[in-house]
Amino acid sequence: MKLPFDTAKLDRLMAEADLGLVLAHTRHNVRYLTGGYYYHFHANSTRMSRSQYLAFVGIPRGRVQEAFYVGRAEEHGQMEAESLWIPGRIEAVRGTVTAAEGAVKAIGRLGLTSGRIGVEMPFLPADAWLALRKALPKVDIVDATPLLNELRAVKSDEELAILRTVYSGVAESIQAAFRGSRPGDTTREIARRAEREMAERDVSFLFAFVCAGPGFLRAPSSITWEPGQVLHIDAGGTLRDYIADICRMGCIGEPGPLAKELHAACLEVQAMVRAGIRAGVPCRDILWTGEDAARRYSFSRYARFVVHSIGMVAYEQPEFSPDSSRTLEQGMVLSVETDFLHPEVGHVKIEDAVAVGETGCDGLGDTGREWQIVSVTR
Amino acid sequence: MKLPFDTAKLDRLMAEADLGLVLAHTRHNVRYLTGGYYYHFHANSTRMSRSQYLAFVGIPRGRVQEAFYVGRAEEHGQMEAESLWIPGRIEAVRGTVTAAEGAVKAIGRLGLTSGRIGVEMPFLPADAWLALRKALPKVDIVDATPLLNELRAVKSDEELAILRTVYSGVAESIQAAFRGSRPGDTTREIARRAEREMAERDVSFLFAFVCAGPGFLRAPSSITWEPGQVLHIDAGGTLRDYIADICRMGCIGEPGPLAKELHAACLEVQAMVRAGIRAGVPCRDILWTGEDAARRYSFSRYARFVVHSIGMVAYEQPEFSPDSSRTLEQGMVLSVETDFLHPEVGHVKIEDAVAVGETGCDGLGDTGREWQIVSVTR
Repeated sequence: MKLPFDTAKLDRLMAEADLGLVLAHTRHNVRYLTGGYYYHFHANSTRMSRSQYLAFVGIPRGRVQEAFYVGRAEEHGQMEAESLWIPGRIEAVRGTVTAAEGAVKAIGRLGLTSGRIGVEMPFLPADAWLALRKALPKVDIVDATPLLNELRAVKSDEELAILRTVYSGVAESIQAAFRGSRPGDTTREIARRAEREMAERDVSFLFAFVCAGPGFLRAPSSITWEPGQVLHIDAGGTLRDYIADICRMGCIGEPGPLAKELHAACLEVQAMVRAGIRAGVPCRDILWTGEDAARRYSFSRYARFVVHSIGMVAYEQPEFSPDSSRTLEQGMVLSVETDFLHPEVGHVKIEDAVAVGETGCDGLGDTGREWQIVSVTR
Repeated sequence: MKLPFDTAKLDRLMAEADLGLVLAHTRHNVRYLTGGYYYHFHANSTRMSRSQYLAFVGIPRGRVQEAFYVGRAEEHGQMEAESLWIPGRIEAVRGTVTAAEGAVKAIGRLGLTSGRIGVEMPFLPADAWLALRKALPKVDIVDATPLLNELRAVKSDEELAILRTVYSGVAESIQAAFRGSRPGDTTREIARRAEREMAERDVSFLFAFVCAGPGFLRAPSSITWEPGQVLHIDAGGTLRDYIADICRMGCIGEPGPLAKELHAACLEVQAMVRAGIRAGVPCRDILWTGEDAARRYSFSRYARFVVHSIGMVAYEQPEFSPDSSRTLEQGMVLSVETDFLHPEVGHVKIEDAVAVGETGCDGLGDTGREWQIVSVTR
């Protein structure tokens, strides 16, 4: 049976963390471990009555074939239609505590009523935690969020294909949102347009920061976009819970000379950073390269450079800190952001992602990086 | 200051539950208590790095003017742009535990370090609960989910206006999804079409059950819709977290006589139930009326009747149980569902909502209840 994740890596990470079981329950990690499955009825909202929908995927160390899934009876049809690989299935009535009780039952069957179990502590409902705690008094329940972030750090070809698709979709949606905008539109209207354009492309909308310059308010609001002003759309969307996060620049009419310089500087910094990205390079070198590149301009005091991993979670693994000696691996995906927050022009920003390769990197959704010009007269 | 919710009712409910403070943190209850505000960047996804975004709204009993909000520094611009009414603001860095620590600080300032505090237990992250537990050892932390459901039970005119808008949007989206469908389309394609149609209408997609009959698989799948088959689209969407949930029937070509009878029976049951809905009527009477009405057909063995409240949560308050003596109040909103799961025809279903009035009720999104016919030949 070909599983959707690297079982050897999971076993190794669990051994290092001394975990007997990983018990995942966030939508993204359920999807990651099942290869895409999540109960569609609750994929966009879990709340219902006095509780919420909760599903668990449990994977015992070294015994992936004894993995279990806790869900609702109503999911049966979808599980069959989507050929869920997990053979052990526990049905629970709706609610967080009943789901936890279902997990307890499965854990008991596996004989894992002592030792360490990893859950997703920042996401596990408190009442479900209490139910696990009470029913498994000899178990040490610890946070497996970092472990799961690490498990997802290197993307498979299938995952890279999904990321390419969602990055293309978001890049195109942003360009279409610029094309559809007119002088006097509010940033709220422009954000909604980006949302609709994503839906057209079967991308789930996450957010759209829209900032008309000069001025730094990025939250969609009643502020209008007027001739001569630069505007950025920094938008996110997902496909099967894989995130794309892109920022592009536009202007009503021709941007001024300083705006053009700031934008050119963003692209230049991005290019210098990309030139250094390949497997084997220390993560901190990427951070240094970007920070150093952003420091070379007369307007560098307004610069900000950020690089972070992205996949199902933004800022997952690897982490980019000056004191980490970790190196890049083929299949990691990095989001690279260069910003200049200039008081006279506004917030000029380019954000893109690249997939790390053996000898270099590939841009994802690399379209529309040039100025998106909206006519003054229409 | 006009607040978006009934402060007297909240104080009364808190007194009954002996709560000194309500500490809300779900997106829907934050929006309810703030009058619509939620940090837009995390409105569709909270996960980030090793934790998730978490905001708190705290309201001390009898001292609404001392309410507090715990969020991130980055929210400042949006708060100002949307005139958030809550004056006390605590900034926390990203993460569940830091947010809880921010709440602890505010609770200390209010002098509420003993007594009972109500949180949303099925939603509160376990690590945030542990942080509250540790920092407030003399506080009894209890579940306020039922209290908040009760607080929202009666909708204001502003809320009814939002519900009317989202119900109209979902009803129109379903009809448009039928119009856009062709023989041979998969139920997955039809569900996606409903999603795109909602986005066009600025409705956030929740779910679409699509069921081609005969056969009862409602999860979107590769099953195709073929001439002569009935199909239901049972779809949900939200606007500002107010939910609309509607089911409509379609057929490729003219439905057969039995399908027509089943559909007519759905409408008949709905009409009989609606005739009994007005302020002052016991909730259980509505349940009995529907169950009784659905029992009068030769095919009644396939019937299912459900009535539940709806607003920001499906199945909120009031609850409809045979042993409850609670009565309807003006401004409550009920979702009424009549289904026939007929082995020869398929799953025939109509679901609609009504707003309870003094002398009757008003349908929300009452369009497209007739058969939505798709041409066999195109």
